[in-house]
Amino acid sequence: MTAATTDGAGAVLPLGELHGSLADPLMEVMNFLNEITLRYPDAISFGPGRPYEGLFEVDRIGEYLQAWTRYLAEDLGQGPDQVRTTLFQYGRTNGQIHGLIARTLHNDEGIDADPASIVVTVGCQEGMLITLRALFAGPDDVLLVTDPNYVGIMGAARVLGVETAPVTEDEGGVDLDALRRVIHSLRAAGKRPRALYTVPDFSNPSGTCMPVERRHELLALADAEDLLILEDNPYGFFTRTDAVRPTLKALDTRRRVVHLGSFAKTCFPGARVGYVIADQTVVAPDGRHTLLADELSKIKSMVTVNTPTLSQALIGGMLVTHDCRLREANAPAIAFYRDNLDVLLESLEAHFPAALRERTGIHWNAPEGGFFLTLTLPFPADDALLELSAREHGVLWAPMRYFHTDDSGDNRLRLSCSYLSPEQIREGVSRLAVLVEKGLAQ
Amino acid sequence: MTAATTDGAGAVLPLGELHGSLADPLMEVMNFLNEITLRYPDAISFGPGRPYEGLFEVDRIGEYLQAWTRYLAEDLGQGPDQVRTTLFQYGRTNGQIHGLIARTLHNDEGIDADPASIVVTVGCQEGMLITLRALFAGPDDVLLVTDPNYVGIMGAARVLGVETAPVTEDEGGVDLDALRRVIHSLRAAGKRPRALYTVPDFSNPSGTCMPVERRHELLALADAEDLLILEDNPYGFFTRTDAVRPTLKALDTRRRVVHLGSFAKTCFPGARVGYVIADQTVVAPDGRHTLLADELSKIKSMVTVNTPTLSQALIGGMLVTHDCRLREANAPAIAFYRDNLDVLLESLEAHFPAALRERTGIHWNAPEGGFFLTLTLPFPADDALLELSAREHGVLWAPMRYFHTDDSGDNRLRLSCSYLSPEQIREGVSRLAVLVEKGLAQ
Repeated sequence: MTAATTDGAGAVLPLGELHGSLADPLMEVMNFLNEITLRYPDAISFGPGRPYEGLFEVDRIGEYLQAWTRYLAEDLGQGPDQVRTTLFQYGRTNGQIHGLIARTLHNDEGIDADPASIVVTVGCQEGMLITLRALFAGPDDVLLVTDPNYVGIMGAARVLGVETAPVTEDEGGVDLDALRRVIHSLRAAGKRPRALYTVPDFSNPSGTCMPVERRHELLALADAEDLLILEDNPYGFFTRTDAVRPTLKALDTRRRVVHLGSFAKTCFPGARVGYVIADQTVVAPDGRHTLLADELSKIKSMVTVNTPTLSQALIGGMLVTHDCRLREANAPAIAFYRDNLDVLLESLEAHFPAALRERTGIHWNAPEGGFFLTLTLPFPADDALLELSAREHGVLWAPMRYFHTDDSGDNRLRLSCSYLSPEQIREGVSRLAVLVEKGLAQ
Repeated sequence: MTAATTDGAGAVLPLGELHGSLADPLMEVMNFLNEITLRYPDAISFGPGRPYEGLFEVDRIGEYLQAWTRYLAEDLGQGPDQVRTTLFQYGRTNGQIHGLIARTLHNDEGIDADPASIVVTVGCQEGMLITLRALFAGPDDVLLVTDPNYVGIMGAARVLGVETAPVTEDEGGVDLDALRRVIHSLRAAGKRPRALYTVPDFSNPSGTCMPVERRHELLALADAEDLLILEDNPYGFFTRTDAVRPTLKALDTRRRVVHLGSFAKTCFPGARVGYVIADQTVVAPDGRHTLLADELSKIKSMVTVNTPTLSQALIGGMLVTHDCRLREANAPAIAFYRDNLDVLLESLEAHFPAALRERTGIHWNAPEGGFFLTLTLPFPADDALLELSAREHGVLWAPMRYFHTDDSGDNRLRLSCSYLSPEQIREGVSRLAVLVEKGLAQ
């Protein structure tokens, strides 16, 4: 077998000879969600879970960078040359703002993490990739994921060739009985259930939220079954009700939880800064102890070398400016997302009244927070319907089948209300209602 | 086998149950090179190949960001909201500055690349990782690397489980006869030699430079043997003599070359911006054509989602400010590195005179450019000697054995002169001379 055939212009690569992940439709979903809005600029998009931009001022970038250099000079006592080195040069692999992140986690989440256990990553996505790479050693290791699930974790698993197994979820998140069954059947098949990936707060795509009691039960199950938990928490701040639940990491007394965090929704997506709390002890054959964070550092050094110092300067400047209290700094954003979710729910109620719902089976969930809800239609919500929706009705959304381990027929669609104005949400739902009306008429 | 044992404090992970790459000493070299300077702040470091900081002014960051937003508004006609979206939001997976990079490659390298074939990456390192992931499909695919070689490509291969095979090099870079032999023996063993990774200009770590004639021969060999070439070009600008050689990509008429580029040495390492030119055609089973860049996009979306818009804004602003002509903008840097390499060679000549060299076998190469040269001692240049050198003599360098596929005894060390002042280089070599003197006396 040759590496490449040729045509008149030179090398041609058969897709079948490239890495297997590239033939998996899953691998195109992230790009689809990021780029569909560029393809239909005039459509109202309930598609990607992007943060709202209206609260952000370009001019503040300079202020935040100055806050960072002032912090380096005044708080860390760096001279002008050191400040230049910190900003300009290759930096510490695991990051420069790990101490500020630890303080913020203490203030906002009640998580007390040793800064040495924190890895600053190029967005949460790199955190997922390096964590999977470190923890999954061989073909028997299996990653458990709720079904439906976040495409980013599935994609990272595909890129690394990590086997995944779906676990059903209900309105309270991962179903613990189903989780036990999957663990035991995998063990019976000679596999090693290595870790469970979960988004306890307002999951993407479902919008489910795990009750506190189940969080305790999940941690106990993880300890009993010797399972690690990869907790992803991008939306925790954004509650619709006032109930704030402790993260799994805040409740983790047995170091079962690797916590994945992101500043994309709370600060600045364009900075691409996330982090991993990896405080597990790793023991080498010679008895030497390291932190999992130290092992992640080796992998990160071969993926991106280090997170851009410029991005860390911006996020670091924001953290310093807000005294390492992002929950308070995000009060306007929290209110905005809460109101948007309320507007979306009201609009659905208005356009899909009870009588229609009873007749057609149309229904949706009412998440207690986050960016997403799922709407169930009486007919398939597939690419063909999305294409029609975008072209004829000027409204975009995400088919839930994109988020299943198999794309078995699914009538549900994901609606994101995070970066629209209330007016756009109302108009978008009315356009959606026309699409559904026509679908029902057929 | 369980995922983790526990101690009093909770989960403990045996290193042997983590990914195999983590047990490979190679995986610590990048961190070593990035962090040793932090461990010995007072030592003169010939260790990491870092760019010189003296030519950089922190205050210019604001100017470059403004140049970018001005470009978006005036040249691309973006309104204030679009500018904010471009800066703030998740962006196009393959980047925002691909058009400016294409113009710069035309001006500086005579490379005419379709912007659609360019992937903007988080440093060249991410470019290597996603390119290897796309091209290496299975256990039979082998990456050919010169020996000694750049640790970043070896590490990326380890992280992905890609098999590597060493090819010997001489002063002119990769030995083509050896390359043919390795290709044929791999094929005879049922393997697929997929691609060769090479740094034709002033390679890291050796400082070798490939003559133009051999570049043509290598391209012909690649076509004849159906091999791809991964060309990495971080140092091409930095010539000591005035001879500028065309890159392999500039000579590539058959799309055999995937070109890996970086702005770390020519602009700003802290931005972590690199790129891949991947203009090969990929053909799907259904006959659909894409560019290799489109396939890389799928993988990048699962590694970092997109390169930070802030980093792209800074580099984009620099490119706009310098009219997409970095070679001219780098004239002071080119002169600085040229002078430094001259000073290093003069200092070695002064401290290790001909008589001593004849008696002891001490020798070094005289690269025509770049950041590195290799010094051969009459005794092993190993970790123990480096430790002694750092602690007792206040001078750092990199053992060449770090850059071999096996760490078989090597008396050579790599000296980088890129981020020292001429005075530091002279002082550093005199300290090195004392170290060597003591070694000879034993």
